[in-house]
Amino acid sequence: MSFRQDNIGNLSGRYDGAAGSDATLILGSHLDSIRDAGKYDGPLGVMVALAALERLHDTGSRLPFAIEVVGFADEEGLRYGTTYLGSRALAGAFDAADLERADADGVAMAEAIRDFGGNPQRIDDDRWSGGNLLGYCEVHIEQGPVLEAKGLPVGVVSAIAGQSRHQLTFTGEAAHAGTTPMAHRKDALVAAAVFVETVESYAAGQEGLVATVGQLTLHPGAANVIPGEVTLSLDVRHADDGERRLAAERLIDIAGKIGKHRSIAVTTNPISDNPTVSCSTRLTSVLEQAIKDLGVSPMQLASGAGHDAVVMARLTDVAMLFVRCKGGISHNPAESVTEDDVAVAIDVLSKFLELLAAER
Amino acid sequence: MSFRQDNIGNLSGRYDGAAGSDATLILGSHLDSIRDAGKYDGPLGVMVALAALERLHDTGSRLPFAIEVVGFADEEGLRYGTTYLGSRALAGAFDAADLERADADGVAMAEAIRDFGGNPQRIDDDRWSGGNLLGYCEVHIEQGPVLEAKGLPVGVVSAIAGQSRHQLTFTGEAAHAGTTPMAHRKDALVAAAVFVETVESYAAGQEGLVATVGQLTLHPGAANVIPGEVTLSLDVRHADDGERRLAAERLIDIAGKIGKHRSIAVTTNPISDNPTVSCSTRLTSVLEQAIKDLGVSPMQLASGAGHDAVVMARLTDVAMLFVRCKGGISHNPAESVTEDDVAVAIDVLSKFLELLAAER
Repeated sequence: MSFRQDNIGNLSGRYDGAAGSDATLILGSHLDSIRDAGKYDGPLGVMVALAALERLHDTGSRLPFAIEVVGFADEEGLRYGTTYLGSRALAGAFDAADLERADADGVAMAEAIRDFGGNPQRIDDDRWSGGNLLGYCEVHIEQGPVLEAKGLPVGVVSAIAGQSRHQLTFTGEAAHAGTTPMAHRKDALVAAAVFVETVESYAAGQEGLVATVGQLTLHPGAANVIPGEVTLSLDVRHADDGERRLAAERLIDIAGKIGKHRSIAVTTNPISDNPTVSCSTRLTSVLEQAIKDLGVSPMQLASGAGHDAVVMARLTDVAMLFVRCKGGISHNPAESVTEDDVAVAIDVLSKFLELLAAER
Repeated sequence: MSFRQDNIGNLSGRYDGAAGSDATLILGSHLDSIRDAGKYDGPLGVMVALAALERLHDTGSRLPFAIEVVGFADEEGLRYGTTYLGSRALAGAFDAADLERADADGVAMAEAIRDFGGNPQRIDDDRWSGGNLLGYCEVHIEQGPVLEAKGLPVGVVSAIAGQSRHQLTFTGEAAHAGTTPMAHRKDALVAAAVFVETVESYAAGQEGLVATVGQLTLHPGAANVIPGEVTLSLDVRHADDGERRLAAERLIDIAGKIGKHRSIAVTTNPISDNPTVSCSTRLTSVLEQAIKDLGVSPMQLASGAGHDAVVMARLTDVAMLFVRCKGGISHNPAESVTEDDVAVAIDVLSKFLELLAAER
């Protein structure tokens, strides 16, 4: 395979097709993760793709299309509060304004890119431009409990649920914790706490909705001072874009009401709005056929998590194969898959390549 | 005045008494504050003491006792999660185990002390040992709304309310925010939020009780991850020690119940327990006389905030004079006092010295 690293940090390897073939299929997933993550969210998809290519290489097989395996950079967006930086660059959907974002230490993204040898001015050049693109297929752990509950090693993703992210700031009044009577307080943390609780109860009451406050910082942050300001993240997801946006709107509205009731100002900053992405019917049916050919029952399920496939869908048809994970646990060191299930995923991806090759 | 800095960082100046006098009175307050603090919490008491001494100096007066003005180091304890480091050293109540505490950057207290030129091994030597000690009198802004409501420039502190501090940790399970259904979550932040709300409502229902969550950190702290762990501070104060301890116990008990209900483990770590300290009846009556002599109505009030006087009470009799502050606001840049009220405080302290001198 020929190898390259692009300016945003994506690593890609190209396995050429048979002589005369001009088409390309992209496989891959992301290489980054969160703090205190597991081992499989992201890298597993890259490793399964490489294992499938290894089989082709070992038998000296060339397909009627080239295969590029991409290890995407920065899907999670922890450092800059972004999402899908690597796949955005490859799909030509990178927002140059993001280059000015600063991390917690004040390092701008452009500087961080230069630090590892990338050129932030040339990210536009990294858009995929290899001609006849057949599609993108991503293998990923499910990160949820459905396949385990159904007793299936793998499943085919029908759609990737849309996601709204907002940042909310609650501003009250910092004051002395010992001398300010309870009735005179404008405690930003208590208002935020009421909101956090409401987010949970609201989402629990709506079928298919999940909503999470995953970040919360307060100011000034001393044991003897009533918190004057709290900033928190709100993440809302639903397979139906209308339901998702309605829920996010309602929750933001409720935050304002909680604040008003307590003389706490609430401001909202929209961070991202990713609509639901449907997987390609054509590629998905080939994936399902590959699963059936291996004697496994094919099952379709929606993805609650976002994936690079969301952004790659702007460039080409996408398909995703989920691998069962223990207890549905992800974003946690306890993340776990079995060797047997991974072997099934490699078999399915190999069969998928074989079926696609046969179509041409 | 002769000046010295001790090993913990207290600054003190000594104004000698008349020839043959062997007694000493200590005046002072603390020089440190919190992040984003006001200008008066602490330093005002040192400045008022210096202004009163300046009057003695200007008229060449020597009293039948020496006066030491102390600017205490680190009363707030932000860096090391301690309280009253400076006054503890002076009162001989410094805990050498604190020297091993590390700040957020991992710098041990002993190292921090050495960094400014102190000797952490010699803090015990800094205990006040000047012989016949008459007492300690501290001027401080009220940091509460009582004097303003009564239309009084100053007030005399009857007692300093006791204070319990605990650290609570809520441990749930970090998981993916997009794929974990609401019913399957062990969200440490939601449990902590229910507790924060309960702390407020519980304290609001008990006369004279204040309770505050001023610090809260969560882990892992990403918008797309359900928080697996939350650590927060609980500060409980009441002028009655029994009421205070009962309230702290009940709140910790409630935290455990909230956790149990949500499969969240709750652990509690006691940080400090400072009993209510009564001011000296003798010194307080002299302060009241000084106020009356100036034609101001003397009023006694309890202090909801802790002060160096709490620790100095282990060494000698203590008294405190509160100065009215605007809106009762403190621990906030909006902290404000009037020049007129400060002038009254200087007059009262000068009169207090005169009355004490007349007694001898």
